[in-house]
Amino acid sequence: MPPPNAASVLNILPPRFKPFSKSLLYSFSVPRNRTSISLLRCFSLYQNPIQSPSSPPPREKALGRSGALSPSPSAVENPTVVDVNPPRGTRDFPPEEMRLQSWLFQNFREVSRLFAFEEVDFPVLESEALFVRKAGDEITEQLYSFEDKGGRRVALRPELTPSLARLVIQKGKSVSLPLKWFAIGQCWRYERTTRGRRREHYQWNMDIIGVSGVLAEAELIFSIVTLFKRLGLTASDVGFKVSSRKVLQAVLQRYSIPEDKFGEVCVIIDKMEKIPMEEIEKKLIDIPISLEAIKGLLQVLSIKSLSKLEELLGAAGDAVADLKQLFSLAEQYGYSQWIQFDASVVRGLSYYTGIVFEGFDRQGNLRAICGGGRYDRLLSTFGGDDIPACGFGFGDAVIVELLKDRGLLPELTPQVDNIVFPLGEDLQGPAAMIASKLRQKGQSVDLVLETKRLKWVFKHAERINASRLILVGESEWQQGMVRVKNLSTREEHDLKLEELD
Amino acid sequence: MPPPNAASVLNILPPRFKPFSKSLLYSFSVPRNRTSISLLRCFSLYQNPIQSPSSPPPREKALGRSGALSPSPSAVENPTVVDVNPPRGTRDFPPEEMRLQSWLFQNFREVSRLFAFEEVDFPVLESEALFVRKAGDEITEQLYSFEDKGGRRVALRPELTPSLARLVIQKGKSVSLPLKWFAIGQCWRYERTTRGRRREHYQWNMDIIGVSGVLAEAELIFSIVTLFKRLGLTASDVGFKVSSRKVLQAVLQRYSIPEDKFGEVCVIIDKMEKIPMEEIEKKLIDIPISLEAIKGLLQVLSIKSLSKLEELLGAAGDAVADLKQLFSLAEQYGYSQWIQFDASVVRGLSYYTGIVFEGFDRQGNLRAICGGGRYDRLLSTFGGDDIPACGFGFGDAVIVELLKDRGLLPELTPQVDNIVFPLGEDLQGPAAMIASKLRQKGQSVDLVLETKRLKWVFKHAERINASRLILVGESEWQQGMVRVKNLSTREEHDLKLEELD
Repeated sequence: MPPPNAASVLNILPPRFKPFSKSLLYSFSVPRNRTSISLLRCFSLYQNPIQSPSSPPPREKALGRSGALSPSPSAVENPTVVDVNPPRGTRDFPPEEMRLQSWLFQNFREVSRLFAFEEVDFPVLESEALFVRKAGDEITEQLYSFEDKGGRRVALRPELTPSLARLVIQKGKSVSLPLKWFAIGQCWRYERTTRGRRREHYQWNMDIIGVSGVLAEAELIFSIVTLFKRLGLTASDVGFKVSSRKVLQAVLQRYSIPEDKFGEVCVIIDKMEKIPMEEIEKKLIDIPISLEAIKGLLQVLSIKSLSKLEELLGAAGDAVADLKQLFSLAEQYGYSQWIQFDASVVRGLSYYTGIVFEGFDRQGNLRAICGGGRYDRLLSTFGGDDIPACGFGFGDAVIVELLKDRGLLPELTPQVDNIVFPLGEDLQGPAAMIASKLRQKGQSVDLVLETKRLKWVFKHAERINASRLILVGESEWQQGMVRVKNLSTREEHDLKLEELD
Repeated sequence: MPPPNAASVLNILPPRFKPFSKSLLYSFSVPRNRTSISLLRCFSLYQNPIQSPSSPPPREKALGRSGALSPSPSAVENPTVVDVNPPRGTRDFPPEEMRLQSWLFQNFREVSRLFAFEEVDFPVLESEALFVRKAGDEITEQLYSFEDKGGRRVALRPELTPSLARLVIQKGKSVSLPLKWFAIGQCWRYERTTRGRRREHYQWNMDIIGVSGVLAEAELIFSIVTLFKRLGLTASDVGFKVSSRKVLQAVLQRYSIPEDKFGEVCVIIDKMEKIPMEEIEKKLIDIPISLEAIKGLLQVLSIKSLSKLEELLGAAGDAVADLKQLFSLAEQYGYSQWIQFDASVVRGLSYYTGIVFEGFDRQGNLRAICGGGRYDRLLSTFGGDDIPACGFGFGDAVIVELLKDRGLLPELTPQVDNIVFPLGEDLQGPAAMIASKLRQKGQSVDLVLETKRLKWVFKHAERINASRLILVGESEWQQGMVRVKNLSTREEHDLKLEELD
C-alpha cells in the first residue's frame, strides 16, 4: 500500500525556481485536502484492531519477560495521544519513499561526480538576515522564520545559494577559484494561506564560483541534460527556456530607469502569469516605471527568437552576445535540441544578473522542473567583494511527478543476500554465528530474531527479496551443517559450515 | 587550511545517549571560545585584501560582459553585511568536511545493509508534543522548540525515536513486523547557558520493532561492533557497558515504590555524576523515595559483575535472565570481549524499559560514543498499542574525535579522472564535446572553463587529484587529435579523438 503522503510529492514550489506561469495555478488546482485524509486515517485507525482497546492485540505482543512491566510506567506517567501524521506540509520517508529518494539523490550525486563538482552543505537553520531581500522575492516573503530562545531571528533556509555565498566569503583566499560545488539539502518555506501544500522539499544545487564566461552556464545546463538522460527523459519530454536578465536591463536603460530598480522589476515581471496583468502594471507604475517603458518591456518579453531580439536590441549588447555564445556551445556539447530562447523567462530571484534558464515539461502539465542563472552580484549584498557565479536549483518534487507521468519511475525493491533462520530458541546462538560469518564476507543477512513458522519465513523472504535461506536445525547443526535453499532456483541442500560462502 | 569549525565537532551531546559520567564535565572543560574565534576571523578578514575596499580585488573579477552591470543593482538596493559564520552551534560542510561526513555515513549505511535494515527518515521539524515528557529528560528540557507562524508549537527534533514510533503507529497493520529500520538524521537541541557548544549533530539510528527477545539487543550491539571494526577500532579501544532498567525496577519494587515513578527515578540517577550527590538524594527524596530505598539503589548501582547482581536480586528475576542471555549470545556472535556488565549504566531517556547499553572509549577521555536500549512502552505514550522495540543512537561527533585521537581518520582526497583544457577560447566548443564524450563513458571530467595558463592547470590538476590531462590545442584539433598526459606517469602523446577512452 503506498503511504498516504506519496501523492503529495507534487505539492511544493521549489524555492529557487519559482514557477513563472500557469504552473502555479495548476498546483493550486490540486490541493490536498489534509482534513479529509486525517479523518480517513482516524477512521482506519479505529477499524484497525491494534488501536482498539477492546479487541485482542493483532500481533505478537511483548510476552514473557519483556511483558513484565505492566502497566507501562511511562504511559501512566504521561498519557498523550499525539497526531500520528507528520506536521502539516512535511513528509515521513518510510522505506519505499526512502528508496526513491536515495535513488534520485544517487543520480544527482553521480552527475555531479561526472562534472567534477565537490559536495558541500550548510546549516538548515540560518540567520534570517541572509534571506531578507528588499526586491520582494516570493521566496523571502514565504520565509519559515522565527525567533530563537535567545531572541535571534533565524530561518529554515528557503534555498541554498545565500549560504553558499556566505561560505565563499568566509573562506576568502583559502580556496582557489573556480569552485565547483554541489549540494543536496532540505529547504523550507512557510505559507500561511493554502492547506496541504508542502513546506519542505529537497533541492540539488550545482554552482560555479569564479567563472565569468558563458561556458559555465553551458556546463550547468549540460549537467541537467545529463541527469535527464540518465533518468530516461528525452528532448521531446523536457526542454530548457533560456534568456538573460541583460535583455531586461537593456530595455530599462533605454527608458532611463535607474539600475537599483532592476531586481524589483524582475521579481514583478516573474509574477506575470500568476497575477492579473492590471496588477502587474500597477506594481510597475508604482516603482515608478512609465507606461511607455512598460509597453517596451512587454514587447520584448514576448520575443521567442534570438534574431528578433537582435533586431530590437542591436547586436552590440551583451545580452545578445551571451545568448548567441550559449546556443553555439550547446550545439558543440550536442544538446541544442534541448534549449530554446524565450524572453519571458526571468526567474523569481532578484539576485540574477545574466543568463537565466528553467527546465520545463513539454506537455505543459507541470511547474518548472529546475531553474538557475548567473548571479555575479550576490556576494556584495553580503558585504563581500563580487565574484562571478552561476548555479541552479533542482527540486525533488516535480521531477518525481514527471517520471511517474512518463512511467519512468524505477521499481525499487529491497534486496537481501541471506535469511538465516534458527529452528528454535536454542539455535539462536549458532544462527548469530553464521550471520556474523556471512556479514564478514560482505553479504547482507536478515537474521530471524524470534520463533516463527517456516511458512512465515518464506513469506518474509519474498517480502524482503532475499536470495537465499539458511535454515539452522538441531540435527544438521550437530553435524556442523546447515540447510541452504536458493530462493530463485528453489534448490536446496545441506552444507558444511566451512563450505558456506 | 582546516575550516575554523573543524575542532568543534566535539561540542554537542548526542541527545539519545546523554553522557552518564565525568564525560559531561570533560565537555564543559573544553569550551570553545566562540568570541575569540569570531574576532580572529574578523581580523583575518580585515587582513584579507578581498575584504578591503581600498586594495585591488585579489582574483580575476567579472570582467568583460559580465562586468557591465555596475554598480551592482542588488548591492545598491540592499547593502547588508551578514555574519559570514554559520549561526551559533551549527556547522558548514565545505568539501573537506563533507567528504568526511559522506565517508562516515557510507559506513553507517554499509553496516545497516549488512544487517538487512531499511533506511527511513522523518521530518526534522515535528510537533513539540512528540518530545515533551514529564520525567524530566534532559533531552526534552533542551528542546529547540518555537511557535510557528500559525501559532503551533513545533520543535527541531532532538532525537529520531519518537518520530519512528509515530510512524509505526501511523502505518498500523500495513507493515509486517518485525521492522528493521535505520535512519541518519540531523538532531537539534537548544541550550541557553554555555557558548560554543554545538546545537546540531547527525545521528545514526538502528531500531528493531516487534521483537521482544534479547537477540534483538544482541544484534544491535553487534552491528555497532561491526562498524567499529570497519573503522579500525578494536576491543581495546572501545567497549560497551551494559545493564538493564529491570535492575532498578526490581529494587524499586522491593521498596514498594510506585511504578509510575520509574522513569523519573531513572532520569535522576542518570545525572549522578553530573550533579552533586546531595542534589541527587534531594531529588529522590522529593519524589518521594525513602532514604533506605536510596541506599539500596546506590548499592545496586555500584555492582559491576553479573554474579554479584544475581546474589543481590536472586536468579528468578527478568533482569538477571535477560543479561545472562545477552552475554551468552555475545559469546556466540564472537564479541564478548567488547561488552561488560555495569549496573551504573541507566541512560538518560525515560522511555527505556529493559536492556540499556552505551559504547565508551576505554581511555576514558570522551563522552559516550553511542547508546541505546529497549523501549517496549514508548508507543503507548503516544496513544498506540505497545509493540516491543529496541534501538540505538550513534552520533557523528564523538566517533570523529575518537578516530582523530587514534590516527584512524582516513585521508579523503578528491578524485577526478580527466581535466580537459582548451588552449584558447575558440577551442571551448571542441573541449566541451570531448568532455561530453568522456562523461558518456562514465568518466569524471573537470572542464577548464576559462582562459588559464598551463602552469595553473597543472597546479589545479594536483589540487583536485586528476589522473589525466587532455589538452585541446589548435593545430592538434585541426587534425582531429588531442594531447593526452598521464599525470602519474608523466607520459604524454597525441591521440585521435576516436582513440580516446
